[in-house]
Amino acid sequence: MPEFIEITSKDNPLIKFVSGLQSSSKRRKEEGKFVLEGLRICDDAYQNNIKFDKLIVTKSAFEKHKNIIEQFVKVSRNCYILREDLFKKISDTNSPQGIIAVALTPQNNNIVSKTGRYLALENLADPSNLGAIARTAEALGIDGIIMTSDSCDPYAPKSLRSSMGTLLRLPLFIVDNLSSYIADNGLRSFACVVDKDAASISKQDFKDGDVLLIGNEANGLTDETKQNANYRITIDMQGKAESLNAAAAAAIAMWEMVKGK
Amino acid sequence: MPEFIEITSKDNPLIKFVSGLQSSSKRRKEEGKFVLEGLRICDDAYQNNIKFDKLIVTKSAFEKHKNIIEQFVKVSRNCYILREDLFKKISDTNSPQGIIAVALTPQNNNIVSKTGRYLALENLADPSNLGAIARTAEALGIDGIIMTSDSCDPYAPKSLRSSMGTLLRLPLFIVDNLSSYIADNGLRSFACVVDKDAASISKQDFKDGDVLLIGNEANGLTDETKQNANYRITIDMQGKAESLNAAAAAAIAMWEMVKGK
Repeated sequence: MPEFIEITSKDNPLIKFVSGLQSSSKRRKEEGKFVLEGLRICDDAYQNNIKFDKLIVTKSAFEKHKNIIEQFVKVSRNCYILREDLFKKISDTNSPQGIIAVALTPQNNNIVSKTGRYLALENLADPSNLGAIARTAEALGIDGIIMTSDSCDPYAPKSLRSSMGTLLRLPLFIVDNLSSYIADNGLRSFACVVDKDAASISKQDFKDGDVLLIGNEANGLTDETKQNANYRITIDMQGKAESLNAAAAAAIAMWEMVKGK
Repeated sequence: MPEFIEITSKDNPLIKFVSGLQSSSKRRKEEGKFVLEGLRICDDAYQNNIKFDKLIVTKSAFEKHKNIIEQFVKVSRNCYILREDLFKKISDTNSPQGIIAVALTPQNNNIVSKTGRYLALENLADPSNLGAIARTAEALGIDGIIMTSDSCDPYAPKSLRSSMGTLLRLPLFIVDNLSSYIADNGLRSFACVVDKDAASISKQDFKDGDVLLIGNEANGLTDETKQNANYRITIDMQGKAESLNAAAAAAIAMWEMVKGK
């Protein structure tokens, strides 16, 4: 393995660098890099042409998954072999697989299409919710997720894990002002609200170029976004629970938007 | 506080007893008891007439929530004051609120109604999924959840937390043989399967007395259950993800069953 650099000291700056990227969204943004941990998600990224700045493996992981790791080497700037005990310091899981890639954050310079159907998330806070929603979006055939820049980080370890790699495949559009982005792109917007007087989502006639708007878990959509939306719609509830959680509401809303398409 | 017993020794058997109930589903079943942690979920249980075998609080929690804790005392067999450092030993959370009740497991001798609409879960494995599904079920007005006895424990700390108390309110029916239970109660069953050739869930005409069947996260429904179901239906998917996760599939399926009811 001539191309791998072996790291044996716990003081090597690589350890601190990767740990920082694992734990801090701010560091990920500053560096334009994020961490992929585990064979499957590294392969998801590789299949989606995401480039690796660093590939870090343990000796045993390399021996176990030699063929696929050699593929990753081709898209990696630098490759490292790390001792098992040092690998634990940079891992975000309890039983590390021994494979981490520091990947270059995709540019996300996608352009929405007037024939697409989209989900927009305003200030969504929980990375696990984001991951679950992305997974559902992909399964149902949603064309992409528009997210406000104050939402949680799609490249956080928790987001990636709960999305099962979906966040690396689905087009993401990260925007500062949701209302103006939607208007500029000529989408027709449906604000999902908890309000018995809003129109039922089951009565809507969705078509291409539509976008569903879903808000923060605790506070819902902002007043500005609700006012600027073309329609205000609601998922009819009958029970005692205060509201559906964000992932369930998003699943039902996306289903209504795309079913029978 | 004359009715409270003060516990100051880490060797008091109460500590081991509560820790055992927190961590072991087997212990919960043997004892017919489970642990409620935090003011809100204890209050949910209290409002639902669940009886407390033991109420355990820290001094500071008692002082902070005196009025409500005095209500709990009325339905508790024994009450204890525990030092903060000892309370941490029996808590399942990182920042304990200082309130735990050991509750008597409800009998769940509910009877399904022919005018109800139900969800049945076969061998569901993940307590967080169960909690999320229960929360959605209650919000949508599902009349109860039928669960096979090999499913995860509805009284596990994770199930209760993710259900936001719903699992204490929603009628639960825990059964050994799903197919015979459904037949005996004259319900019409719809097995949710991942199969492009199954009928679309959006084409079904649901009515009272119907039950949706959802299977294990990894393996789906058993062959026996699929064969015995009245109908096999599917949630149409268009994307690349292998399948919807159990909580998202359940949300969409329940929504289709009850909307416009």
